Amino acid sequence: MEKRVAVLPGDGVGPEVIEAAVKILQVIERRFNHTFKFTHGLIGGSAIDKHGNPLPNETIALCEESDAVLLGAVGGPKWDQSPSEIRPEKGLLAIRKHFGLFANLRPVKAVPSLLQASPLKEEVAKNVDLLIVRELTGGLYFGEPSRRTENSAVDTLVYTREEIERIVEKAFELARLRRGKVASVDKANVLQTSKLWREVVEEKKKGYPDIEVEHMLVDSTAMKLITNPGAFDVIVTENMFGDILSDEASVITGSLGVLPSASLRSDGFGLYEPVHGSAPDIAGQGKANPAAAILSAAMMLKYSFGMDTEAAVIEEAVNAVFEDGFFTADLAMEGQRVLSTKEWTDKVVNELDI
Amino acid sequence: MEKRVAVLPGDGVGPEVIEAAVKILQVIERRFNHTFKFTHGLIGGSAIDKHGNPLPNETIALCEESDAVLLGAVGGPKWDQSPSEIRPEKGLLAIRKHFGLFANLRPVKAVPSLLQASPLKEEVAKNVDLLIVRELTGGLYFGEPSRRTENSAVDTLVYTREEIERIVEKAFELARLRRGKVASVDKANVLQTSKLWREVVEEKKKGYPDIEVEHMLVDSTAMKLITNPGAFDVIVTENMFGDILSDEASVITGSLGVLPSASLRSDGFGLYEPVHGSAPDIAGQGKANPAAAILSAAMMLKYSFGMDTEAAVIEEAVNAVFEDGFFTADLAMEGQRVLSTKEWTDKVVNELDI
Ligand SMILES: CC(C)[C@H](C(=O)O)[C@@H](O)C(=O)O
Ligand SMILES: CC(C)[C@H](C(=O)O)[C@@H](O)C(=O)O
Repeated sequence: MEKRVAVLPGDGVGPEVIEAAVKILQVIERRFNHTFKFTHGLIGGSAIDKHGNPLPNETIALCEESDAVLLGAVGGPKWDQSPSEIRPEKGLLAIRKHFGLFANLRPVKAVPSLLQASPLKEEVAKNVDLLIVRELTGGLYFGEPSRRTENSAVDTLVYTREEIERIVEKAFELARLRRGKVASVDKANVLQTSKLWREVVEEKKKGYPDIEVEHMLVDSTAMKLITNPGAFDVIVTENMFGDILSDEASVITGSLGVLPSASLRSDGFGLYEPVHGSAPDIAGQGKANPAAAILSAAMMLKYSFGMDTEAAVIEEAVNAVFEDGFFTADLAMEGQRVLSTKEWTDKVVNELDI
Repeated sequence: MEKRVAVLPGDGVGPEVIEAAVKILQVIERRFNHTFKFTHGLIGGSAIDKHGNPLPNETIALCEESDAVLLGAVGGPKWDQSPSEIRPEKGLLAIRKHFGLFANLRPVKAVPSLLQASPLKEEVAKNVDLLIVRELTGGLYFGEPSRRTENSAVDTLVYTREEIERIVEKAFELARLRRGKVASVDKANVLQTSKLWREVVEEKKKGYPDIEVEHMLVDSTAMKLITNPGAFDVIVTENMFGDILSDEASVITGSLGVLPSASLRSDGFGLYEPVHGSAPDIAGQGKANPAAAILSAAMMLKYSFGMDTEAAVIEEAVNAVFEDGFFTADLAMEGQRVLSTKEWTDKVVNELDI
């Protein structure tokens, strides 16, 4: 197959980890006889520096001509004082909205050799294998009015039935490919949007008799993610709750540095990026963990290109490198050898290049 | 001193744990020569059963004549199918709003002998000593419009400068009595209300040069509460973020069953209740842990009656009982003796009754 990939390295460690991901994709090209056409573009702080805009038109045009987008990370102290409309993060919000990337997928799975780095007791974290499906283009993030005066401010949490339907369907479809369980998270004892959300879930579940559905309140979910995270399969929720819960979930297994994400629309087009940030403190030093970017590339193969085998092969290679005890600085425990970004990537290349 | 206490036992285990708290307060009366006048009232499900209203006028009148309110817990499966306006939780929301209880205080402190029950590694949980100060009468909970039609729904997140000022001041004042650190939590990279919030914090902190202030995003806070909860002193945030983060924080030390809370207005009047719910599955069996209700009574003495010594004496007694290895069913580990609600309360009475 031939596929066009828009590569947006972004800021901080973004360029390093994206370079690693591209290297892995090139191994996949050779091994499986695909052609990936990589074209680079700017986003975030680096785009502000060059164009005064965190999402320049050139970048939008590039993504429009591509089959998927691979993104590094955006942001850094350099741009923290910029006026709020030209902050790096605005590039992220704008690309999500422009392309209608309504479904944010964040899988969290315990890796046995990384549990040592988990803040949770090993017996609590070890069975974690969950997927958060977060609505990404609605709710408080984009609702109008959103404005302030001298003495007050307002934001609007708004959802249409359609917006809820498509994300809930997505979650049900994904659960079918997993363990068939969906926890739908809302605050139906307080919010009208949550009542509509719960109603839509009740309706939609009739079409998925094979799926076990549970309604949970967001506050209880925040607890259970810590006390019994292994009980979750798919979690589906609205934008702001998803922001909070997916970050919470990202630290329970000690593997924040290795978590990928996908932001999809319904036709297969998607944006793939590591969950970790731009880590400006270690940028350019070859210390960054490229696993999250590499696994994001694997998600791209699976969700945008339908290359399930290729994706699985990458995941296995990454896991094998961890199981062999190779770690970058963020994960190495005292006394363990520390590999650079490049060295660690080459270990994955070796696993793949058979 | 003579004080009037409105006692609202509520539903489920509420009556049992409130009975325990009242018993402890009666010991304090004798030991410190106070008079507490306890008057009972209905709230939640039990009030729905009797009056068709989770917060009957009688109860409001009773609270208006009192110096503080001691509440058990509300809710249970019996009322889950009630129309949403007459659910037990509405009683809670209504009492907060009616009395302007804008400041919700939820302290979380690691108890050495309970760390065994924590989902976190002991070295992560052991230094936890934080206080969440949640705004309780604004934001998404009460903003208008809050409504739905067949195909869409809207809730409104609104804050005035004044509402933010009073809760931020409260947090600064409380931090002064603790370790002098405040983490103000918002989502200023997305929400207008958060930008106003951050601005108010920046202004207010000028009046508190002794306080160390940090702004944090709600998603990062959800992570750090797990990876490094010991780093927090006071956390101040808006209503919905506070709901989620305080429930998250409540499970990190393994002591959910022992956590108290206070909901205050500025004149000292307040409502005190355990963080745990009504636990209908164990109601009426003498299995409930009364520690949270007892510690809520201690908070009442401190925050509404200015009886700091009396409050400290209760806290010490509760800790001593734990250190002596006495636990109710929720906390006892395998092989440990299990005390009933009454037996455990009597241990505290023995500690106090010198
Ligand atoms: C940078 C920020 C606007 C963004 C969000 O809140 O969605 C980030 O936290 C995320 O989760 O991707
Ligand atoms: C019962 C519910 C409405 C309430 C809230 O969301 O405030 C509860 O979760 C709490 O935190 O006291």
